[in-house]
Order: sequence, then C-alpha cells, then structure tokens
Amino acid sequence: MFRHTKHLQFEAKPEKPDALYAMKLQELIGGAWGEMTVTMQYLFQGWNCRIEGKYKDMIMDIATEEIGHVEMLATMVARLLEGAPDDVTAKAVKDPAVAAVVGGMNPQHAIVGGGGALPADSVGTPWNGKYIVASGNLMADFRANVAAEAQGRLQTARLYNMTDDPGVRAMLKFNLARDTVHQNQWLAAIEQLQEDGLEGPVAPSALFDEENQEHANTLWGLSDGEQAHEGRWASGPAPDGMHEFHYLENPAPLGGPASAPPPSGHLYATHDG
Amino acid sequence: MFRHTKHLQFEAKPEKPDALYAMKLQELIGGAWGEMTVTMQYLFQGWNCRIEGKYKDMIMDIATEEIGHVEMLATMVARLLEGAPDDVTAKAVKDPAVAAVVGGMNPQHAIVGGGGALPADSVGTPWNGKYIVASGNLMADFRANVAAEAQGRLQTARLYNMTDDPGVRAMLKFNLARDTVHQNQWLAAIEQLQEDGLEGPVAPSALFDEENQEHANTLWGLSDGEQAHEGRWASGPAPDGMHEFHYLENPAPLGGPASAPPPSGHLYATHDG
Amino acid sequence: MFRHTKHLQFEAKPEKPDALYAMKLQELIGGAWGEMTVTMQYLFQGWNCRIEGKYKDMIMDIATEEIGHVEMLATMVARLLEGAPDDVTAKAVKDPAVAAVVGGMNPQHAIVGGGGALPADSVGTPWNGKYIVASGNLMADFRANVAAEAQGRLQTARLYNMTDDPGVRAMLKFNLARDTVHQNQWLAAIEQLQEDGLEGPVAPSALFDEENQEHANTLWGLSDGEQAHEGRWASGPAPDGMHEFHYLENPAPLGGPASAPPPSGHLYATHDG
Amino acid sequence: MFRHTKHLQFEAKPEKPDALYAMKLQELIGGAWGEMTVTMQYLFQGWNCRIEGKYKDMIMDIATEEIGHVEMLATMVARLLEGAPDDVTAKAVKDPAVAAVVGGMNPQHAIVGGGGALPADSVGTPWNGKYIVASGNLMADFRANVAAEAQGRLQTARLYNMTDDPGVRAMLKFNLARDTVHQNQWLAAIEQLQEDGLEGPVAPSALFDEENQEHANTLWGLSDGEQAHEGRWASGPAPDGMHEFHYLENPAPLGGPASAPPPSGHLYATHDG
Amino acid sequence: MFRHTKHLQFEAKPEKPDALYAMKLQELIGGAWGEMTVTMQYLFQGWNCRIEGKYKDMIMDIATEEIGHVEMLATMVARLLEGAPDDVTAKAVKDPAVAAVVGGMNPQHAIVGGGGALPADSVGTPWNGKYIVASGNLMADFRANVAAEAQGRLQTARLYNMTDDPGVRAMLKFNLARDTVHQNQWLAAIEQLQEDGLEGPVAPSALFDEENQEHANTLWGLSDGEQAHEGRWASGPAPDGMHEFHYLENPAPLGGPASAPPPSGHLYATHDG
Amino acid sequence: MFRHTKHLQFEAKPEKPDALYAMKLQELIGGAWGEMTVTMQYLFQGWNCRIEGKYKDMIMDIATEEIGHVEMLATMVARLLEGAPDDVTAKAVKDPAVAAVVGGMNPQHAIVGGGGALPADSVGTPWNGKYIVASGNLMADFRANVAAEAQGRLQTARLYNMTDDPGVRAMLKFNLARDTVHQNQWLAAIEQLQEDGLEGPVAPSALFDEENQEHANTLWGLSDGEQAHEGRWASGPAPDGMHEFHYLENPAPLGGPASAPPPSGHLYATHDG
Ligand SMILES: [Ca+2]
Ligand SMILES: [Ca+2]
Ligand SMILES: [Ca+2]
Ligand SMILES: [Ca+2]
Ligand SMILES: [Ca+2]
Ligand SMILES: [Ca+2]
Repeated sequence: MFRHTKHLQFEAKPEKPDALYAMKLQELIGGAWGEMTVTMQYLFQGWNCRIEGKYKDMIMDIATEEIGHVEMLATMVARLLEGAPDDVTAKAVKDPAVAAVVGGMNPQHAIVGGGGALPADSVGTPWNGKYIVASGNLMADFRANVAAEAQGRLQTARLYNMTDDPGVRAMLKFNLARDTVHQNQWLAAIEQLQEDGLEGPVAPSALFDEENQEHANTLWGLSDGEQAHEGRWASGPAPDGMHEFHYLENPAPLGGPASAPPPSGHLYATHDG
Repeated sequence: MFRHTKHLQFEAKPEKPDALYAMKLQELIGGAWGEMTVTMQYLFQGWNCRIEGKYKDMIMDIATEEIGHVEMLATMVARLLEGAPDDVTAKAVKDPAVAAVVGGMNPQHAIVGGGGALPADSVGTPWNGKYIVASGNLMADFRANVAAEAQGRLQTARLYNMTDDPGVRAMLKFNLARDTVHQNQWLAAIEQLQEDGLEGPVAPSALFDEENQEHANTLWGLSDGEQAHEGRWASGPAPDGMHEFHYLENPAPLGGPASAPPPSGHLYATHDG
Repeated sequence: MFRHTKHLQFEAKPEKPDALYAMKLQELIGGAWGEMTVTMQYLFQGWNCRIEGKYKDMIMDIATEEIGHVEMLATMVARLLEGAPDDVTAKAVKDPAVAAVVGGMNPQHAIVGGGGALPADSVGTPWNGKYIVASGNLMADFRANVAAEAQGRLQTARLYNMTDDPGVRAMLKFNLARDTVHQNQWLAAIEQLQEDGLEGPVAPSALFDEENQEHANTLWGLSDGEQAHEGRWASGPAPDGMHEFHYLENPAPLGGPASAPPPSGHLYATHDG
Repeated sequence: MFRHTKHLQFEAKPEKPDALYAMKLQELIGGAWGEMTVTMQYLFQGWNCRIEGKYKDMIMDIATEEIGHVEMLATMVARLLEGAPDDVTAKAVKDPAVAAVVGGMNPQHAIVGGGGALPADSVGTPWNGKYIVASGNLMADFRANVAAEAQGRLQTARLYNMTDDPGVRAMLKFNLARDTVHQNQWLAAIEQLQEDGLEGPVAPSALFDEENQEHANTLWGLSDGEQAHEGRWASGPAPDGMHEFHYLENPAPLGGPASAPPPSGHLYATHDG
Repeated sequence: MFRHTKHLQFEAKPEKPDALYAMKLQELIGGAWGEMTVTMQYLFQGWNCRIEGKYKDMIMDIATEEIGHVEMLATMVARLLEGAPDDVTAKAVKDPAVAAVVGGMNPQHAIVGGGGALPADSVGTPWNGKYIVASGNLMADFRANVAAEAQGRLQTARLYNMTDDPGVRAMLKFNLARDTVHQNQWLAAIEQLQEDGLEGPVAPSALFDEENQEHANTLWGLSDGEQAHEGRWASGPAPDGMHEFHYLENPAPLGGPASAPPPSGHLYATHDG
Repeated sequence: MFRHTKHLQFEAKPEKPDALYAMKLQELIGGAWGEMTVTMQYLFQGWNCRIEGKYKDMIMDIATEEIGHVEMLATMVARLLEGAPDDVTAKAVKDPAVAAVVGGMNPQHAIVGGGGALPADSVGTPWNGKYIVASGNLMADFRANVAAEAQGRLQTARLYNMTDDPGVRAMLKFNLARDTVHQNQWLAAIEQLQEDGLEGPVAPSALFDEENQEHANTLWGLSDGEQAHEGRWASGPAPDGMHEFHYLENPAPLGGPASAPPPSGHLYATHDG
C-alpha cells in the first residue's frame, strides 16, 4: 500500500514558462526510457521478486521513489506550459521565436491536457506496458535496469543542454544525480547477486550443459568490415570466465535450405504440388 | 548492402509439428526481446555508430547474424504448423490433447499467415519499433544489448523446457549458445569502451560536475522493508569508483508542494480564481 | 444497413486554408475523444444492446449521425489544407507566419494523405479500437458516453478559441451544439434507465449483497492534503442513497505483506530457496 | 512524493492456484478499465488540478489508493500462477481440465513474466497512456472517472462469477466495494462542483452563447427504429435545465455536397482538372 | 450524411452458438484486412477524392455498404456468443469439446463486451487507423483496395472452412461474393483510370523523366536461389510497356561505405574524434 | 543466412544537412509504406512461400535488396541531422528559417537517437508488424506488394518535391527507379501466376462454386451520387472473365432486423426480459 505527501521530492520550478521545452521534456515522463517506465518496471519487479529481504526491499525503495519522479516532471511540465500561446493562429505570428513555439509545441498539451502533462513522449506516442520487463530473473532484470538508467541519464543530459532555464536545470541536476546513483545501485546489485551465488554473469545461469558449446564463443564475420576481430570480443577470455572468444572469418551456414512444408488445403496457400 | 543464402545458419527441423508450441515460439520472433528486436536494434546502432572501425564492424557482424535468426525461427514455426487442425470445430474435439491445441493455437497462424510465421509475439501483439534503442552512446546501448541478450537467453531457456521435440531442442541449443556468446561480447565491449577511454561505467560519462553530488550516492528508504540497507547498494564504494553509498532512512522531501499554475482562460480548466 | 447522401449534415467551409489548424483539428477526427470514437462506440453499443425498442433505436440514431460528423471534419481538413506549403524547404522560409506552418504542419497530411484527412489525432497517433467501450450494460456505457461528449465538447471549445476563421467557427458552433444535446441525451438516458427500473445509479446494479459493505463507504486518507474531508464525498449520504460516506484518517493496511510464491524451476526466476 | 508499506491494502490469497483465471484477471490490472488506468488517470488529474484544496486532496487520496490496487492484483496473479503447467506439451495432456489451462493460459505469464503479473490485459494487449484523461476540466474528468469506476465494477462483477475460489472472491468483494464507493464519490464530486458554482451539468460550462442554439436540443432520426422518440431524451426538459428536447423525423442535411479542393501538383493526387 | 435501417444487408443467423468460432470471426471485423478497414479506407478515400463524378460516387457506394458488413459480422458474433461458458472454471471442465472453448474463447468477449463483438481481431489486437490508406492518388489507392479485397476474401475463405454451421456459411457465401465483386470492381476501376488517361500502370504516373532510368528495369540477384531469372519479372517487357527487364547476377554496390557524421557534442554520442 | 557489405547499394550523401527534411524522410524508413515494411513483408513472404524455385528466389532477391534501402535511408537521415540545432531554445531564435527547423524537427532525433535515424515514421509513430502481410497466397500477397510499391513510389515522389538538395534528389531518383521496377515486377509476377495456372485474377481462386453467385456481380447504390453507374465497374464484363457487372439502384436489405440474443445473467448486460 502507498501513501503520498504533496511535497515534491525535489523542487520543480522553472524560472519562466517554455512550451516548446515542455514538449521535449515529455520524453522523460512517458518515453520508452522515461520515469513511467522505471516506475512500472521496478514496481512489477518488486512484486515479482521471489526472494524476501534485501533485494525486494531495495527494489521497492527505488520503485517508490520513481513515482515521485513522474510527479516532479508532471509538475514541471504544467508550470512550463503556463501562458502557452494556445490561441495564436499561424497568420498572426510576427516573431521567429514565437513561430518556433506555435509550430513546435505539442497541440495536445492544450487540446487534451488543458495545460497539463500527458502520459506520452516528446512526439506524443503514449506510454505502453511493453516498455517494461519483470521476468523474475533478477540478473536479467538488473541488466535491463542498468540499461534503463543509462538511457535515462543520457536523455536527461541531452535535455539539460536544450535549456538554459536555471530552475529547470536545478531539477535536472537532481535527476542526473539520481540516475547516476541508480545506475551504480543496479551495477552493485549485479555484483551482489554473484557474490551471493544466486546468478552468474550470463543470465540465466542455467542450461550451460545443454547449450551448444562449440557455438558459444565465436563471432561470425558476416559483414565485410575488417576490424571486428580487433576488439576484446573476438579473442581472449570471455567475461563469464568460461569461454575463449574466436573470430570466424567468412563462415559457412550450418543448416539446410530454408523451406516451408506443403500447405494445408483449407488455407489456399499457393502451391504447385 | 546485404546478400542472402538460402541455407539457414543452423538447422530448424522439428521432429513433429506442434501448433501450440509454434504459438509460444513466436515470442522469440516478434516479442519485445525476440530476434526482430536484436536485428533492428543492432542494425540501427551500427548505422548510428560514430566511430569507424572495430566497434562498428563488430556491431554489423552481429546484426547481420540476427536477421538469420529471424529466418531460422520463421522456418521452424512454418514447419511446426504443418497439418495444424485449422478446420476442426470445437464441438468435434474428442481428445484433450487436441483440445489444448484447438483452443490454444494462434488463430492468426491459419487465418492471416496461412501456416506461416507472423511478425508478432506469443499473444499476437505485433512487433514495434519502440522495442529498440540506438542512441549513439555506445555504453548506454551496449548496456541495452546485454539486457536484450539476457532476457532473450532467459526466454529461450524457458521455451527449451516447454518442448521435448529433439529437432526443436537442437536448434534452441544453438540459440542458447549464441545468446551466451552475444551476452559475453557486449560485456566485453563495455570493458573495451572503458579501456579505450571512450566511456566510463556510468553512461554517459558527462555532466558529473553539473549533477547534484549530494544526491548521487543515496538510497532513499521509501518502503518499509527493513533489509534494503544490507546490500552492496547501500554502503561502501559504488561501482563507478567515484561515490560512497549511503542509506537514508525515512527521508524528508526536498521540494515544495506540488501545484499547477492558474489555467489559461481559453482552455476551460476548472478554477476558482 | 446504411445509406449515404453527399450532402453534409452541416456546412464545412473555411474562409481560408490553414494547414497548421488542420493539424490541430485532427484531434476531433481521430483523437481518443474524437468523432471516430463516438461513431464506433455508439455503433457497437447499438449492435450489443439487449433491449429492443427505444434505447436501441436512440443509440442507432446518434451513432448514424456521428459518421456524418467524421465526414464534416474530414471535408473541413481537406479544405484547410488547400495550397499548403508542401514543397517549401526550411531554408527558404523568410516569414515567421510561414515558419510556424512549415515547422508545425503534420507532414503526413502531405506525404501520406496527399492533402486529405487522416484517421489520426493532432500528433499523428492513429485511432484505435481501445478508445471505445460497448459493454452491454447500458448504465456503464451511458456513463462512458456522457464522458465522451463532455471531453469532446471541451476539446471543441478549445479548438474554437484557436481559430478566428468564420467558416470554421460556424461549423464548430454546430458541433458544440450537438455535443451539448448529446451530453443531455445520455444524461436523460441515465435517468430513464433508473425510471424504468433497469439499472440503479451505481453500475452494475448487482452483487451489492456480496460486496464488502464496511469498505463501500470510506475515503481512505492516503495523501497528506488536509482538505479532502471537506467535500460531499467524505461525509453525508452517497448519491446511491444506500451509503453514508466516512473519511478514514491515516488508515492501516488490512492485508499481509505482499509476496510471491516460490518459483517454478523451469522458469529460472532467481531464488534462494 | 510517495511512500510504501509492504502490507497490502487487503489480503490477496487464493485458496488454490488457477493459471487460467490469472490470465482473465489481468483485465483488472492492465485493461482499458483496470487499476493501472485509474491509478494513472487520477494521478495525472491530481497533478493537473488547478484548484488547491479539497478537490485536489481527494483526487490524490484516491489515486494513491489505486496504486495499491495494482499491487493487490499483481500479488494475486503471481499466487494464482504458482505451479502453472508451464512445461506441459499439448500431446501429453490427458485431462480436459488440464487441456483448458494448457491451451488457455497466457504464454507470456511463463515466457516473459516468469510466473508474475504483466502490465497487460486478458488478451495480452499492453496497457497504454491513451486509456486515461486528465483535461484540467474537473467536470469532464469526473464524468470520465464515474465511467471508469462503472466499467471497472462491471468487469469485477463478471470476474467474480468466473471463479469459485473463496480467497479470490474475498478480495473481489473488497474491490467491488471500493468501486462502489469510488463511483459514489465521483458522483458526489460532480454535485459538489455544481454546488460550488464551478461547473454546470454540461461540460465545459462555456460557449453556450456561441453555440448554435437551434441545434442544441434535437435528436436527429437517422435510423429507422420507430421507438427512439419514446424516451426522455426526445421530448421534455433536458437535464441541463436550459433546453427542451425535440425529435426530428427524417431530417434533411443542412450542408452542401462534400467535396475536396483541387489538389496540389506536388502531391500527385489524381485529378482531371 | 448517413442513414440507417435496422435490417441487415444479409441475414446473420448461426444455427447454433459457437464461442470459439466467434473469437476467430473477429478477424473479419477488426483485423488488418477486416470490414472496419475497408469501411474506413473507402470512406477516407471518398472524402479525399479530387474528381467529382463516377469515381467518387462509386467509392462512396462501396464504402457505405462496408459499414453494413461490420454490422452483419458484429450481429453474428453476438449470436455466436449466446450461452458462452463464461462462468466455467477450468477445474470443472470434463469434456474435451468444452475444454477447447473454455481455453480458447476470447475472455474479453465476456469481461469487456458482455457477450458482444469487439473492435479487435482474432487475437484481441485493437483495430487501428494505420491499417488504411487514402492517398489522393486513385491508382495507388485502388491497388491497395484490390489487395484489401484479396486478403479479405482469402481470410473469409479460410474461415468458411473452419465452421460447418449452415447459418454462418450462408452469410460467408454472401461475403465471399461481395469480396469477389469488389475485387473485380477495383480491378475495373484501374482499367478505367488508364482508359480515361488519368493514371498509368505504375503509380504515380509522374517523375519518370527524373528517375534513374538505368536502375528502373533490373532485378538485383542478392540471394543465391538460382531460379529467380526464370520468371517474367527478369526478362522481356515490363507491364508498364516502357521497360525491358534484366537480371543482374552478383551485382556490386554502387555507393560508398555507410557512415555517420561526427556527433554533436551536446548529445554525448560516443566518439574518438 | 545473410551477409553484409559496408558499401551502400547507392550513394546517400546530402549536399547540406537539413534536420526538418530528415524528420520528413523518416516516412520512407518506418512509415506504413516505408522500407522497413517492404523488407519485412517480402522476407516473411519468402519464408512462407510454398513453392520452391523462381517465385521464392525472386522474393528473396527483392527482400534482401530492401534491407539495404533501409540502410541507405538511415545513413541519409544521420547525415541530414549533422549539426542540427539541438541546443537552441525557442526564445533564442531570430530567423524564420531557423524557427521552422527548431519548431519542426523531430525532438527524438536528438533526445532518443542522438542524431541517428529512428524506426518510426514522419510523425514519430513506431513501425509495427501489422503493416505487413505474408498470407501464403501469392496472388493476394503480390497484390499487396504492388500496392506497397505504388504507395511507396508516391510518397517518394512527394518527398522529392520537398527538397532541392542535389544529393538527396540523386538518391531519391534511384529509389523512384527501384519502386518503378519493383511495381513492374510484382505486376509481372501476377501475370506469371496466371500463366502458370496457379491462381486466377481474383484471389484466392477457390470457393467460387460455394459463393453466392447472384451477389457476385452487383454494385449496390447506397450513396446518392448519380454517376457511379457510369464506370466500367457497373456494367459489362468483370476483369475475372466470369461475371457481368450490374448496378442496383436503391437496393433493399436482404436480412432481418439486427438484434442481439438475451444476455447471460453472469454478465449483467442491461435487459428487460
Ligand atoms: Ca528516475
Ligand atoms: Ca539472436
Ligand atoms: Ca459528434
Ligand atoms: Ca480500484
Ligand atoms: Ca466487405
Ligand atoms: Ca524499396
């Protein structure tokens, strides 16, 4: 069960409204790597966690924080939209700075949201549940969480450069810091899983005896770039400590020709049989 | 530019058809973590790579291999669908084994695909472009690639347990091995980026001076589970070598109350002002 | 079965083209609350109506009118797009008013629609079937219909303020009026259902004996705003005439700790058991 | 900012697992009218509310409760999935009861979720942000909230009849009660808005002088059902107290013929001009 | 403007209900090639048609018929769902025929639609606006219309084989006939466009002087199948009467290496420059 | 299995960057009729082809070429985005030409793609698997392929007029030519299917004896446009050589009234029975 305080985790006050920037900032709310994504990803991972104790508790701590990040960004967007030119016709525009806003702002910020934030990204695509994963395998999920925080911090850093508003930047500095610490925490959690003997470096730590060992260490050279063999991924020990990388130059296919069986007569696939 | 051989990278022949399993196997074709995803993710990353040489060449090697994985799986699905009970009415079913297939198979395998594979997952949701990322930041993207291979190997392992067909299992053993080596290669590529001094552990390696340092090392205790502070993520050095973790018990919000500015009169938001 | 006359229900002639406004007006065609939504919602409700007679007949009257509303708006959009600057490059723009149009118009109006309307909203998101409901329960559906007309009238009112074109405004005045009467009609239909003894105020009028009565009248105070108890929703009789509202300050959870059962071994969820 | 306790708002313990029912119950988590929808709808409405005080505080109380409803349902789904037949091949099925589960369960519950809940509905469609509205106009939004609770209660009632598990039914009785009180509260909030003079019965309470009055009270008889004029929606005073309903039998269109202007030469629309 | 009669264009009465078949039949309502698609495709094409007269009038005739096809199918689905086992738990199933229905029917037919049709396909994916095209170029659109009727007739034929209910088959025979005539009509309309000199065989009939003629007649042999040159597409005159086909065996790429320019510093793309 | 060369099929070098045009050009990458669509459509058709030999080989030749078209366009987009104004605030814009770019460019090109292409269209909608069809019936699929190339060539032609950059135009001339030859090839393949006796003009060539012959040749006059009977589709022989067209003026419906059966008591549909 959850509780709420009206106080924001961190202040979200722009110095001045900026409707064009509000449109861009939506990426951090409802984009594939935005705060709705980490909120729902961590909540579902916490609920799906099969180990009681430190892992589950930490996931729920961070998940709960993320709901508050959506709140901060939604508040910021509403404040950035204050006084947006929602009734200005194109023909009335005399100033290039206004033209950029009138042509560029998200029309749904006015028509649908009435000046409030939307559960959508910077081009208006709605957030959807396929953005998240909660597989029950903590190693696989923590890998996804590191990726989410890395992409999230990257997008925040890009958005930081797209504004010079001190109030917006103050909030984004906080967000950058939280993305840094969360990246670190998921990386630490990966180490912890390995220390606790629960998972290995490659997820899931299962079926290694079944898998086709001769194909578990080769890079197939299928593009004609000549330098692919120069990286750590092409020779030497693999990170899992179990394999030695090899580069296969110009490898031959191992299977027979692709084909599909004769069709069922009820389906009217074209056939000459 | 690409070229194609009709020979599969690895054989894809089931011993017997199994339309119910064909439905499940679609997850590896068009699911969020399936082969269409890694194909498109790595292709767009390769095209978006700003460093000529080993990184780009390796990405394109793996991307090109992945197209062939979609091909193997699509071939397998068509073969698993051979002779599917596509004209059996429910009332004619006398056998529980047939009932499971008739009730459970994907009806679009017959109605739409005519016995062929679909660009969709195991519940029929179509693949979409939001499943992939190609940000231009290799560290952030390689993190996403590790996650994709980890989730992909996990799903493959689960599907391995859902069949006892030796032909299907033979192919999945190859897939498991490729997922293992690809996980290892993206992990090695992360090490390589750091060795080459191109990126640090936390992506992107920028704006650390700007970000709010006092908030870059704390775990906010916002859920009442009592063990969150026991993990590596709550004390000791962070993986980036730059921060020392701290756990904040019962932290207070730092911001003022959330509120939205007075509304524009043209938008008819309810207001008492 | 349906028939069509080429005459529009109401005139749809702008005084002058305005491609930027055409983009915005798409919200009323293919937005979540646009005319495609009410068309399909009312059609499916009519087809799903289990009572022959006045309810079904009225639903089909309004549904049929709504198809004509899509037609009026699609006609208006095509006329607003006449002469749109579909071959003007950015670098050739000298005038801020033109800049707003060139940067702001929906590129698909030219590239995909060839100057015609699209089945999409003002940011280009395609209309989809999840926008509608036809549950068979008329009370629940009429509630949804009131909501649809209220949101629709609100968006129309906002769009009215975004243009000063007399021809567009003339049509929107008609639309506003139709939204008013349709809101009124669905509200009247709710009263009618109750008068006819078919449904009560809370939908569906079933399972009241089963539901947990002690939890059917309380507002749980889970946010720290202090004024929630001041409204009609927190004390006094409820609109259904069956309950007396109460406000629970700082309520305790009633359930045990959230947890998930031990995982199946075949799924490789991380577990320490 | 939010806080979390691991205790569920209400107990969520099935007597026995039931993977087929878990698939159906997903509708209440990630369906168009499920708990993710009301969570996000009320959160965004609260953040977008332009009146400080009782309205905003009440919205945030209910929004915060709804997050906990997602949690209860996600917990229930994981428990219902315990021991699901995730490795049973169709040909091994001997029992019709097992056949129904093997054919009917959501394969993603095993392959993707590892036995946990998904942010999706009962056919696997992912939840998306277009399910919600937060327009800033409280009357229009409260209408949508009544609709959401009515459809939600209806679906919960249907799901109640689809199980005989006492533990599931105990939770659903709580959910039914909460849907009842929430419906009542939004209905009371509509009355409150009117009492406070903030909005009228038809939303938004604006532009009545502008709208085309002669078209604001008529039901156009466009379908040949003969009883549409018998309801309250066809004669007598309208609920807004401002109009008198009329039924127009066989009404003529008011506009000219639909047509589209001559096409731009750059777009290659077919033209004989 | 449209009018409606309650009489169906053709009878839609199954001899007996069949909930499993109702699920499959949804493909013809809300699938990518279903009746909602042709309804909306033809309506938008008619509204976007730039030639007054026979083309526009014919498009509107067919479009208006298609709305009635959705109606016939929605009526059929509701009747097929009568008495569906919507309260049968899996464990209570004793009969394989019932197992197929209980596991296989669309749960949303009960939970969401209350026994009525849904605007979705046979796996529950909602219909969406991207299924249709109305480009303003009649040749390109009529090509799409032929494709739609061909895929539609194919799916109808497949569904015809999936039932033995005489009532359903009677309706599908009508549907098959209408798909046949509509395919023929769009093919005839293509001939008409050419006869009228409005478009040529290749759409659009423009920019032939601009396009790169040496590349307008070659089949690039990029796959190693050896028989591609044996078809009419590899030698001899092309259908447009303007080109002579050639087969290029093992063609070399014409462009330079793919690469991306140095990145902007504000975006933190990884770079070694 | 596939192989890749870093050389592009054709050069993709703009003379100058143009971020606004890059946004528009996305339509040819990830739009419903873009290169991702034809890539996936032809690949799945090739894999689903039930006839070994010339048909399958030709499909795979063209499919493989199309992957390279995505590559050319993705390369072009990255080059067009070089130096895009990704850190310019609206208020700093002084020049109308810059205003059009700042307001009009796709913000995700910077925030998500870091200056690279996206798997999305010109309004940012992600590509999805429902855009393609691979039915196993070659006639139905080749009809869809002609349509895809026709719409694709049309969109390319429109985009050709939206730029004056010689480098972009050079590439689009190649694309136009390839669309021309591909249209011709699919048209030739349709002739080939008929010559080989595999399919007739109307797809699929089955169930003609079953279908309702009296309804297989009539155009129902359901719209009041008076000229629909003047086209080739309304009288004379149909293209299939089997039917003679007729125009039905003011046709009467053939079915009884639409109605839905009495509802199941468990679903709480409103009923007066
Ligand atoms: Ca965050
Ligand atoms: Ca792979
Ligand atoms: Ca309307
Ligand atoms: Ca609830
Ligand atoms: Ca039809
Ligand atoms: Ca192409």
